[in-house]
Amino acid sequence: MNNKRVINPHKHVIIIGAGFGGIQAAQALAKAPVQVTLLDRQNYHLFQPLLYQVATAGLSADEIAYPIRAIFQKQDNLEFQLGEVQSIDPQTRTVQLPHTILHYDYLIMAAGGVTNHFGNGQIARHSFGLKTLDDAVRLRNHVLRQFEKACQESNPVKKKAALTFAIVGGGPSGVESSGALSELVQLLLRKEFRCMDKSDVEIILLEATDRLLANLPQQLGEFTVKTLQEKGIQVRFGKMVETYNGLTLTLADGSSIAAETLIWQTGIQAAQVLQQFPAEKDRIGRLKVQNTLQIPNHPEVFAIGDGAFLLDKNGQPLPMVAPVAMQQGKLAAANIQRLLNHEPLFNFTYKNPGMMATIGRRKAVALLNGVAFKGLLAWLIWLFVHLMQLVGFRNRIMVLINWAWDYLFYEKTVRLIGPE
Amino acid sequence: MNNKRVINPHKHVIIIGAGFGGIQAAQALAKAPVQVTLLDRQNYHLFQPLLYQVATAGLSADEIAYPIRAIFQKQDNLEFQLGEVQSIDPQTRTVQLPHTILHYDYLIMAAGGVTNHFGNGQIARHSFGLKTLDDAVRLRNHVLRQFEKACQESNPVKKKAALTFAIVGGGPSGVESSGALSELVQLLLRKEFRCMDKSDVEIILLEATDRLLANLPQQLGEFTVKTLQEKGIQVRFGKMVETYNGLTLTLADGSSIAAETLIWQTGIQAAQVLQQFPAEKDRIGRLKVQNTLQIPNHPEVFAIGDGAFLLDKNGQPLPMVAPVAMQQGKLAAANIQRLLNHEPLFNFTYKNPGMMATIGRRKAVALLNGVAFKGLLAWLIWLFVHLMQLVGFRNRIMVLINWAWDYLFYEKTVRLIGPE
Repeated sequence: MNNKRVINPHKHVIIIGAGFGGIQAAQALAKAPVQVTLLDRQNYHLFQPLLYQVATAGLSADEIAYPIRAIFQKQDNLEFQLGEVQSIDPQTRTVQLPHTILHYDYLIMAAGGVTNHFGNGQIARHSFGLKTLDDAVRLRNHVLRQFEKACQESNPVKKKAALTFAIVGGGPSGVESSGALSELVQLLLRKEFRCMDKSDVEIILLEATDRLLANLPQQLGEFTVKTLQEKGIQVRFGKMVETYNGLTLTLADGSSIAAETLIWQTGIQAAQVLQQFPAEKDRIGRLKVQNTLQIPNHPEVFAIGDGAFLLDKNGQPLPMVAPVAMQQGKLAAANIQRLLNHEPLFNFTYKNPGMMATIGRRKAVALLNGVAFKGLLAWLIWLFVHLMQLVGFRNRIMVLINWAWDYLFYEKTVRLIGPE
Repeated sequence: MNNKRVINPHKHVIIIGAGFGGIQAAQALAKAPVQVTLLDRQNYHLFQPLLYQVATAGLSADEIAYPIRAIFQKQDNLEFQLGEVQSIDPQTRTVQLPHTILHYDYLIMAAGGVTNHFGNGQIARHSFGLKTLDDAVRLRNHVLRQFEKACQESNPVKKKAALTFAIVGGGPSGVESSGALSELVQLLLRKEFRCMDKSDVEIILLEATDRLLANLPQQLGEFTVKTLQEKGIQVRFGKMVETYNGLTLTLADGSSIAAETLIWQTGIQAAQVLQQFPAEKDRIGRLKVQNTLQIPNHPEVFAIGDGAFLLDKNGQPLPMVAPVAMQQGKLAAANIQRLLNHEPLFNFTYKNPGMMATIGRRKAVALLNGVAFKGLLAWLIWLFVHLMQLVGFRNRIMVLINWAWDYLFYEKTVRLIGPE
C-alpha cells in the first residue's frame, strides 16, 4: 500500500485518462498552484482518429501514439503514473489502483469510452473493435493473414468467406475503415497476391438507418455512398446485426452473410471505471454532468469527454468526438482554478469546429463553419487538421512521410503480420 | 489437402525460411528455369542485427521488418506461402505444412536458429531472448514497465531488483544490448523519471570466459570493456548462469543477483524443423553439409545459414552471421543451376567481410580486411554497412531519420508499452 508520498501544500488534482480530454486538462493546469497526478492504463497518448489507418496498414502503431512522460517532460507540477484505476470513492475522495490508494482534492474523470457490443457476448468474442492500439494491430494482422490463408484455399466457398469483410456502423469510423480497407485490398491484389482477384473479395458496410454519416448534411452522406460504391464496397441500409459466430453474420431480418471478419464500429459505452461511479448516468454509462462539468453533489469531481453526458444548447447530447473532450478538458481545468479562487464557475459551451470523414485516398467529406466540402479539398483539409492535432513534432513528420509515400507510390507501408 | 496446383514443366525449388540466406537464394534464382516456393512462418523478412535497437526503443518494429511479398513483387517465378513447416521427408521429397503438402525437386533449408537455453526450462521461462520481433517488442515493453513499476515502489530492495538488468553473453549481441540499454536508461532517467536516479539502476553483463567479443582482436575486446564500464555497466567475467526464477539469478559459483530482468544472449541452436531432418548434425542441431552445401546422400537438398554446419579453410566452424548465410544462399542457388545443367558444383569459400559491434552512441569496434577500427569511425562504418544491407528503400529512409533524430536530439523514439 503506497500512499501519496509527496508532502505538498498545493491541492492535489487527479486526472484519470490521458486521452484528448485528460491531456488538455493536465496541460491547462501547468501554471495552477496544484500538484497533478495523471493516470492511464497505457504509457502513451493515443491519437484515436487515425486508428483505422493502423488497422489498414497505412501507419505503424508508434506513429499515432506518444509517450505521456515525453509530453509532460517539462511540466514540473505533473506526475504520471501507469496503472488501471479499480474504483473511485467520492466519500473518502480516493482513487484505488492495484497497489496504491491516492487521495485527491479535485478529480477529473477523463477515462473515455470503450466498445459497446450491446450485451452480445458472441459479437464481443468474434468481432474486431477499433478503440485501442491493440484492436488496430490485431485487426491488421488478421486482415493480412486472411489474404495469406485465402491464397492457399482451393475451396471457392471458403475462399470467399475468408475474403469477405463486414463492417457494422455507417458513422465516420465505419466509413473511414471501409474506404481504407478497400484500398489496402486493391493494393494487395494488384501487387502481391496473384492467387486471387477483385471478384474474390467483398467489403460490406452495414448501417441500421437509411443513411451514412447522419451527423452531416444529407448531400455529403449521399456523396459518401456513391464514392464507397465506386470503390467496390457494398453499402446496405436498414441492416441490424442479430449475432455473429466468427463465420456467419446473422442479421435481424433473418438473412445471413458468410464472413470471417466483422469489424464492429457502431457501439460505444463509457469506460468501466466511470460506470461504477455512484452518480446518475445515461443509457450507455456516461456520467451526467452539470454545465460546469461537475458531478451533482460532488463539486470537486468533474467528468469530461466520451465518459460524460451533457446537452448542448439545442438540447442534443454532445457528440463523442475529440474537440468536445479537448474543450471540456480546458474548461474543467479552468473551473478548478475558479474553485481555488472562490470565484463563480464557467458553463461549458461547445464550439463545433466541424466534422470530417475520409472515404479513401484523396476523398473526404467535411463540414466546417456550416460549409460543406467534399472530394480532394475536403481530404486536404482533413489531412491538415489531423496533422496539426498530432501530439509531438516527430509523429507529424512520420505521418507526413508515410502519407507522402503513399500518395506518390500508392503503397501501404506496414504490411507486417505479427506482434507489431 | 492442397497439393501444388501449378502444372509447370520447370523444376520446383522450395526454400524454407526468408531470412538472410533464404532471401539471397530466392533472388539468385530469379532467372533460373525453376519455380520457387518460399516459405516462412512470418510474412516479413527480419533484419536481426538491429533487433536490439527495437528492444531498447531506438527503432520501431516495422523499421527492421519488410513484407516478403513486397520484396518479391517483381519476381515472376517465385510464390510466397505463409506457414510453418511441420516436417520434411527427403524420401518422398515433400514438405509438410498444416494444411498442405508440397513436393520439391530441390530444397534449400534456410530456417536459421532459435534461442538455446541449454535445456534449462526455468531460464527459458523467465528470461528474454532476442531472436524474433516478438522477443524484441516484449523486452522493450518489459523494460519500460519496470521503470513505471519502480517509480511507484517505496521498498528500496524491491526498487533495486526492478531496476537491475542482467545480460548473459559477451559476444556482439550481449555487448550491443548492454550498450543500448544503458543509453535508454540514461535518457529515461534524465528526461522522464524524476522518481529515481542513476544509482538505482544496475546493468550487469555476464560473460563465461575472460574476455568480450572473442572473435575480434583482444585490443578491441579491451576497448569494449572500458567503454561499457564508462557507461556504468558492470562487466563480470568467468560467470556462468546456474538458473533463474524471474527474481533471483543464481550463478555457477554460488553467488546470486536480485534482478527482475534477464536477457539471454548466449545460446543458439538450429530451428526445430532442421533438427528433425534425418541427417547428421552437430551439438546444437545444425545439419552437417558438404562443401557444396548439399546434405550427404540427398544431393537435391541444401542447408545454409545458421542451421548449417560447415568448417572453413582453417578447420573452424563458420560463424553464425548474416554474411555467411547470404553467401551460402547465393552458392546454393548457383549449385542448383549447375545440377540442372549437369555441371560440376561449386565449393563454398567464405569471404569474411569483417565483424562489427556497436557499444553505444557513436562508439563501436570493427575488423575489416584485417584492420581494426574503434570509436566513432567504427560506428560510422557500422551504420553505413547496416543501412546498405537493409532490405527495401523505405526502411533505409526511416532508419536514417530515426538515427538522425537520435543523434541530434538524443531521444529514444519508441517508448511505448503495448502491442507494438
